[in-house]
Amino acid sequence: MSVTVQQSEYTEFADRHIGPREHELKTILSHIGYGSLADLAKAAVPVNIQNPTPLAIEHGRTEAEVLAELRAFADKNEVLTSMIGLGYYGTHTPGVILRNITENPAWYTAYTPYQPEISQGRLEALINFQTMVTDLTGLDIASASLLDESTAAAEAMTLMRRSSKSESQVLLVDTDTHPQTLSVLATRAEPLGLELKLIDLDNETEIQDAYGLLISYPGSSGKIRDIAKFTASASANDVLVAVTTDLLALTLIEAPGKLGADVVVGSSQRFGVPMGFGGPHAGFMAVRSGLERSIPGRLVGVSVDADNHVAYRLALQTREQHIRREKATSNICTAQVLLAVMASMYAVYHGPKGLKRIATKTHHKATALASGLAAGGVGVSDSFFDTIRVNVPGKAGALMAAARERKVAFWQVDNDTVAISLDETTTTQTIEMVWSIFAEVIGGSFPTVYTTDFESEAIPSELLRTSNYLEHPVFNSYHSETDMLRYIRKLSDKDIALDRSMIPLGSCTMKLNATTEMEPITWPEFAGVHPFAPLDSIKGYLEMIHQLEDMLVEITGYDAISLQPNAGSQGEFAGLLAISSYHKARGDSHRKVCLIPSSAHGTNAASAVMAGMRVVVVNCDDFGNVDMDDLKHKILQNENELAALMITYPSTHGVYEATVSDICAMVHDAGGQVYVDGANLNALVGLAKPGKFGADVSHLNLHKTFAIPHGGGGPGVGPVGVREHLAPYLPSHPLRPEAGPTARGYADGGTGAVSGAPWGSAGILPIPWAYIRLMGGEGLTKATQVAVASANYLAKKLGDDFPVLYVGADGLVAHECILDLREITKVSGVSVDDVAKRLMDYGFHAPTMSFPVAGTLMIEPTESESLAELDRFIEAMQSIKGEIDRVTSGEWAVEDNPLHNAPHTHQFLLGEWDHPYSREVGAYPVDRLRENKYFPSVRRIDGTYGDRNLVCACPPISDFA
Amino acid sequence: MSVTVQQSEYTEFADRHIGPREHELKTILSHIGYGSLADLAKAAVPVNIQNPTPLAIEHGRTEAEVLAELRAFADKNEVLTSMIGLGYYGTHTPGVILRNITENPAWYTAYTPYQPEISQGRLEALINFQTMVTDLTGLDIASASLLDESTAAAEAMTLMRRSSKSESQVLLVDTDTHPQTLSVLATRAEPLGLELKLIDLDNETEIQDAYGLLISYPGSSGKIRDIAKFTASASANDVLVAVTTDLLALTLIEAPGKLGADVVVGSSQRFGVPMGFGGPHAGFMAVRSGLERSIPGRLVGVSVDADNHVAYRLALQTREQHIRREKATSNICTAQVLLAVMASMYAVYHGPKGLKRIATKTHHKATALASGLAAGGVGVSDSFFDTIRVNVPGKAGALMAAARERKVAFWQVDNDTVAISLDETTTTQTIEMVWSIFAEVIGGSFPTVYTTDFESEAIPSELLRTSNYLEHPVFNSYHSETDMLRYIRKLSDKDIALDRSMIPLGSCTMKLNATTEMEPITWPEFAGVHPFAPLDSIKGYLEMIHQLEDMLVEITGYDAISLQPNAGSQGEFAGLLAISSYHKARGDSHRKVCLIPSSAHGTNAASAVMAGMRVVVVNCDDFGNVDMDDLKHKILQNENELAALMITYPSTHGVYEATVSDICAMVHDAGGQVYVDGANLNALVGLAKPGKFGADVSHLNLHKTFAIPHGGGGPGVGPVGVREHLAPYLPSHPLRPEAGPTARGYADGGTGAVSGAPWGSAGILPIPWAYIRLMGGEGLTKATQVAVASANYLAKKLGDDFPVLYVGADGLVAHECILDLREITKVSGVSVDDVAKRLMDYGFHAPTMSFPVAGTLMIEPTESESLAELDRFIEAMQSIKGEIDRVTSGEWAVEDNPLHNAPHTHQFLLGEWDHPYSREVGAYPVDRLRENKYFPSVRRIDGTYGDRNLVCACPPISDFA
Repeated sequence: MSVTVQQSEYTEFADRHIGPREHELKTILSHIGYGSLADLAKAAVPVNIQNPTPLAIEHGRTEAEVLAELRAFADKNEVLTSMIGLGYYGTHTPGVILRNITENPAWYTAYTPYQPEISQGRLEALINFQTMVTDLTGLDIASASLLDESTAAAEAMTLMRRSSKSESQVLLVDTDTHPQTLSVLATRAEPLGLELKLIDLDNETEIQDAYGLLISYPGSSGKIRDIAKFTASASANDVLVAVTTDLLALTLIEAPGKLGADVVVGSSQRFGVPMGFGGPHAGFMAVRSGLERSIPGRLVGVSVDADNHVAYRLALQTREQHIRREKATSNICTAQVLLAVMASMYAVYHGPKGLKRIATKTHHKATALASGLAAGGVGVSDSFFDTIRVNVPGKAGALMAAARERKVAFWQVDNDTVAISLDETTTTQTIEMVWSIFAEVIGGSFPTVYTTDFESEAIPSELLRTSNYLEHPVFNSYHSETDMLRYIRKLSDKDIALDRSMIPLGSCTMKLNATTEMEPITWPEFAGVHPFAPLDSIKGYLEMIHQLEDMLVEITGYDAISLQPNAGSQGEFAGLLAISSYHKARGDSHRKVCLIPSSAHGTNAASAVMAGMRVVVVNCDDFGNVDMDDLKHKILQNENELAALMITYPSTHGVYEATVSDICAMVHDAGGQVYVDGANLNALVGLAKPGKFGADVSHLNLHKTFAIPHGGGGPGVGPVGVREHLAPYLPSHPLRPEAGPTARGYADGGTGAVSGAPWGSAGILPIPWAYIRLMGGEGLTKATQVAVASANYLAKKLGDDFPVLYVGADGLVAHECILDLREITKVSGVSVDDVAKRLMDYGFHAPTMSFPVAGTLMIEPTESESLAELDRFIEAMQSIKGEIDRVTSGEWAVEDNPLHNAPHTHQFLLGEWDHPYSREVGAYPVDRLRENKYFPSVRRIDGTYGDRNLVCACPPISDFA
Repeated sequence: MSVTVQQSEYTEFADRHIGPREHELKTILSHIGYGSLADLAKAAVPVNIQNPTPLAIEHGRTEAEVLAELRAFADKNEVLTSMIGLGYYGTHTPGVILRNITENPAWYTAYTPYQPEISQGRLEALINFQTMVTDLTGLDIASASLLDESTAAAEAMTLMRRSSKSESQVLLVDTDTHPQTLSVLATRAEPLGLELKLIDLDNETEIQDAYGLLISYPGSSGKIRDIAKFTASASANDVLVAVTTDLLALTLIEAPGKLGADVVVGSSQRFGVPMGFGGPHAGFMAVRSGLERSIPGRLVGVSVDADNHVAYRLALQTREQHIRREKATSNICTAQVLLAVMASMYAVYHGPKGLKRIATKTHHKATALASGLAAGGVGVSDSFFDTIRVNVPGKAGALMAAARERKVAFWQVDNDTVAISLDETTTTQTIEMVWSIFAEVIGGSFPTVYTTDFESEAIPSELLRTSNYLEHPVFNSYHSETDMLRYIRKLSDKDIALDRSMIPLGSCTMKLNATTEMEPITWPEFAGVHPFAPLDSIKGYLEMIHQLEDMLVEITGYDAISLQPNAGSQGEFAGLLAISSYHKARGDSHRKVCLIPSSAHGTNAASAVMAGMRVVVVNCDDFGNVDMDDLKHKILQNENELAALMITYPSTHGVYEATVSDICAMVHDAGGQVYVDGANLNALVGLAKPGKFGADVSHLNLHKTFAIPHGGGGPGVGPVGVREHLAPYLPSHPLRPEAGPTARGYADGGTGAVSGAPWGSAGILPIPWAYIRLMGGEGLTKATQVAVASANYLAKKLGDDFPVLYVGADGLVAHECILDLREITKVSGVSVDDVAKRLMDYGFHAPTMSFPVAGTLMIEPTESESLAELDRFIEAMQSIKGEIDRVTSGEWAVEDNPLHNAPHTHQFLLGEWDHPYSREVGAYPVDRLRENKYFPSVRRIDGTYGDRNLVCACPPISDFA
């Protein structure tokens, strides 16, 4: 028989992505008593929600084919020389950072540093980031990090409201603010009842009748104002002042903290992070002393370990959304750790002198460009750092077109004005080309050859920076590539990431981030694109994005997807906003109640509050499922106000609840909308579609389910998917209607921007595109099935030693399982914390601790772990159980045993030894560790000490003595 | 004043490459008593050889500029779909290998594993390589590795000669051998007096009247012969049989070792190593038991450490050229370790089943292509694996042209024949395109759509492989990307490379290999090019190569450069061959004596013998310089036969000998030529030019002086530079006259090929090009000066504790210094070995041991090490001196002290402890190690045990129990 060979006749990728080999899968399945993966899935997933047909996603392509397809997209992007500015700038990523951080799995596959003892490397990099931000902004404390400049400004808006003594709900906003930031502010202000009032600071001296003021310094137009005169007036009138700024400019102009700002926000993008068509980049926020307990985002602080050595860990965690839930003041969860690390390393590598040199060169070139333009007779602005506005009555369009011809992009402000931004990549040839463009369009005698004669100073002399920055040794020690390389290596060697061992984090899906998926994101054709580049220059991006949207629609069963939210939390917000806009459009503005089960992720409640909703908690029953009676009761109680129910599916208890369809129906019947949190979508892909089993909206976590790496706590991508009736209420963008509902034919659609960039973190979208394309429909489905099989294998194998808390139909868990240690702790005195820390001695990252249930461990192996690795983890847990037994039996004291003393550093093990177990038991509880041993770099960290003595910047070297 | 800004107005790269900051250089200089780098250089380098003018090399460019220039070269290369074959094939480098080995400094900056205790990772990878080769070839032992297939064949030629019982000097060579291999064989045979006789095996049954036979299996034409019938006849007539083969074919056809071959050679390129326009790739050789002590190249063997744990190290080192000197049987030194590691990892990742699947798919596509061509009416060969010959009377040229139009390259055998090779990258679309090309040119009914119906078998059934291969667990355990990633990380974590600390190896120049230099080599436009691709498709390569040649001419002062030698040893051979060809051309064939000082690198003498010369050793005096009286005497003694003097400058003693000009003159006066070994050229660049101070020829080591990374022992690039009169005698190439002297206008020039590829390891030439371009003339010169300053700083600082053996003018050393430990050893019993191993405990790789003087350490810091790292090394050495003193004083026993027990693994330190020093003294002799500690993975290795019990393949897992 003749078989026509498909273009992709055979792919091996699913076999590379999925850990267990076929014969190992048989072993796994036979242990849990199923004959095939399909049988297992059929038993585990409620029949009424199962997909009736296979995913309509093409068969997986080979890695070579997918790279070729992505290359074709890349070739359809035309990388223009961007002079657009507006918060996004060209930058040179130093090769040593690109190769050894951005492209290094030791960094990009790391998890959020909740287990600080195995995260000291990236925590040090993040404290460097915080130090860099506080030094440059002149403020006291900074977090690490926020999602982008625009959302950081929105966070400043809410932080000031809750910190202000004023009762006003008015925020004054500088008219000279980036348009995308204005849009994000508006989107976020509305549900909270805050009023934005634009203020032209050129014509104001008194700052009053508001709780806060947001100034841009430098302005979006490039203009540099002395903000001190506004801060003084604001302070006198109980108005707090936030400043959006530019880190590179701050090396030359005075720090806003020195000029009276309370809060400073911005983006660290131009510190070595490619524009990436909008992201990901790390936004930042710094605040003056007194506001530190209100600062959103993760905060790294200095503390000490059990040996009183300096050690880093996340500080003040109790103020975070996962603890505070509906009382949270921000829903920020995933940040942009990998990008913050890159930016901090850029500062480490260049040091204060290098940064100042880069800024000075950029500024001098900008002044030279301006002088040349003035010489040609056009009007240019006179106070600026890197961005000039040029007055060209009626000629702006023609100039844009002429520039486009030469692959240069300016920004057209209006018919009479263009803005031109410079950066460290701007060459003198480009400036000569700009002059020639003006000569061509305007006529006049513009210079043709760049000389230093054109250079001058355009920073008001009273604003020249006098305060010092980056004086810590870390910014002054690693300026040769060799030194920098070794510093990066030294830090990464302290950490456990996926390149060392399994990270079995329940709900966080730490699976393979394949090289083939990662490669394209650093190609210049994807990395070098400005988010507001002309549409005709980004055809490849648009095509890829639309394909990705279509594939996600097929996988989720929704009708429309917005890729704009740049983290899961933002996706939640956007999804809830769509629901409330929908109600509003139907005249149901009173529908404000959001039901959330007690087991939900903390961000759910925080996002609901941000979307202007009131949270009502629904109980769970003893089996971990939504308590149907309580749900009925709460629906009834809030019938008229019911806006939405927000559930996670499978539940955060790791179980496929059988009642999900019923739940959806009940909510719909009461006029509410159903939000399914997509955190656990990796347990559904190919098996069931939320958009088909009753949900109206979900956010997805592309950085979990769709293989974007965790990056140590970001980048995240949190697209939102909705059914047709909600599609008009997806995010829109002021500068790119094409990114919003109007592109889908809704005349006046959209809820405004939720991120600064039209397609959010577009620069990493090649990863999920490649993942889906490589796996194909069958591969994706198999991945889900294997994840479920592996979780059940662990539950079965470990269940004897550690009771599995919740199971669903047929005694099966979904893709994760919760081990209940509460009884063990009661009997032995050994806590979940002890077990988590002891796992480090075995070379493992701990599972999720005490979420969603205190005193438990939630384990998610994912499909990517081989049977050998699963068995190593089982061996470790069984060995730990043996150790616990020796504590229970009294052989080892509760206060002195390998669990209590864990983790064991080599220093601890090699020092004086007076413990009831040997050094070797401490180091090698199982034999394989003799050959392949990881030593944590610090002992157990005292978090409380650090919170009581809050230090969030690089400690002086003397502290390490 | 108006300053016209240069294209490259300022570069920071030299500051990134050079370790010490400006203020640190002042510290260094003041310690050694000089006011400036220039003053120091003037004092150190003899006045009569100093460059009168600065290097005429443009000012250094920025990294962004250099990447843009290389991108422009890349864009001028047109990457054709290569169906050329001839030993070079398309291959998919698995992403996980590309990112985590090829592009990972932990692998590419490693040194040759002479210090096995800190090299277990790469030694394991290399023993995997050897196991892969022995398994696939069916022989008993393989080395790791050789330079390419053609030179490996030449090594087989000489190995057979010295192992054969026959007295014949005749080697029979299969006519169906790759043309470049025939050329290399001829080049290498001639000086040794060996006679090559081509034999058409289709018409021969008796193999006799020769010492050896070289068969190609499969043949260059693709044909697969049953070699068993030839080996039987050969064996009966005392003729040894070598086979050149293809590793991928061997997964399907019977192993040559099973068919009677004594030696098997080939290339491992198609196992994931890009073609790279000719290299670098790892050649291989396997031999049957009994020949293992004659096998050239490095051999990794299994041994045990002090705790009797399995450990790897280089085996049978006494047979290597650096020991055997003029008695050596090969000059192979640097191999292709990085590439051998890549190829072995490809086998580890795919495993035996995966390799067989790749081979089968390739074979089936080749059969389908052939069936389709036959269906169209053209004659095709019938016994093949992946290469078919097609009979197209008079149409070959037209076919080539039509293919070229569609970016496909066949190989034109003659006017009537084209050859078409397939590989794992060949798609069914390409096959359809080939059919359409034939249809267009030949006419006839060729198929248009590929179907599996066309597939068949074209391997003679009696030659189908029946023997097993790659059954060791290492080839059957890491088949998911996650597992593979962790395996790679685990191995690299065992090793010290430049990304962890200084590797102060005298004579081996372990300096920065900058990321910017490394990036382009994996771009497809450089990596994906076949060495015999049409000239009009490789314009970018040619332009870059010519520029590199010009820059090297300027730096060395020679008149012409050949980049063909793919290692320093091959450069030596090529240079000496140029000398002997020159003498011959002048009727001086009797000039055969090569004078070599006793301090020379061992390869010098080995290469001289290979070039047909007789080595006469010249003594050195007590100051380490050439003994001028002995030199005069030896010149006189050999006046009529004097061919050459071969010296290293600065000398291998690390000193600028003041007499070098006199020496050159004396040799010239006697009719000899002067060969300056360029090993230490990094101490001359910018300061003096060998081509101007009297030398006639040098080879350079681009992998040392010009920043190509060491790769753990290769790739090497060893170009040869000559003065005008020797230019006609540079290497040529049978398939690419453009690579030889004819390209420089010499009508009939060239000595034949010394490497398989026209421009040798062309794929990595972007590295030295970028290095020179980034540094510029000034940067290069400063690098040399800083290297000299740093060496003198170390000599000064360490001289009190360890006497510096040789110094030159003003008491200065050149770029390295020799510390004399002989007296210390005599007094304390502590050996250089003890010091070297103890340095590992301090986190350092040992300096060069006992070369060129036994009982000494030769230290070369290079310009890339910062003052902080130099001081750390000094601290370590001073601390070690303190430890030695405690042995001398009797405080610690000679047989039980931290030096004798070094290196200390954590297992050793954590086990039973009964030593006169504490565990902490063992682990942390200096305080900084508490924070940043590297533990070697094995204790001191017993090399002798392994040589007595020779095992050179992966040991069974049970050995590790």
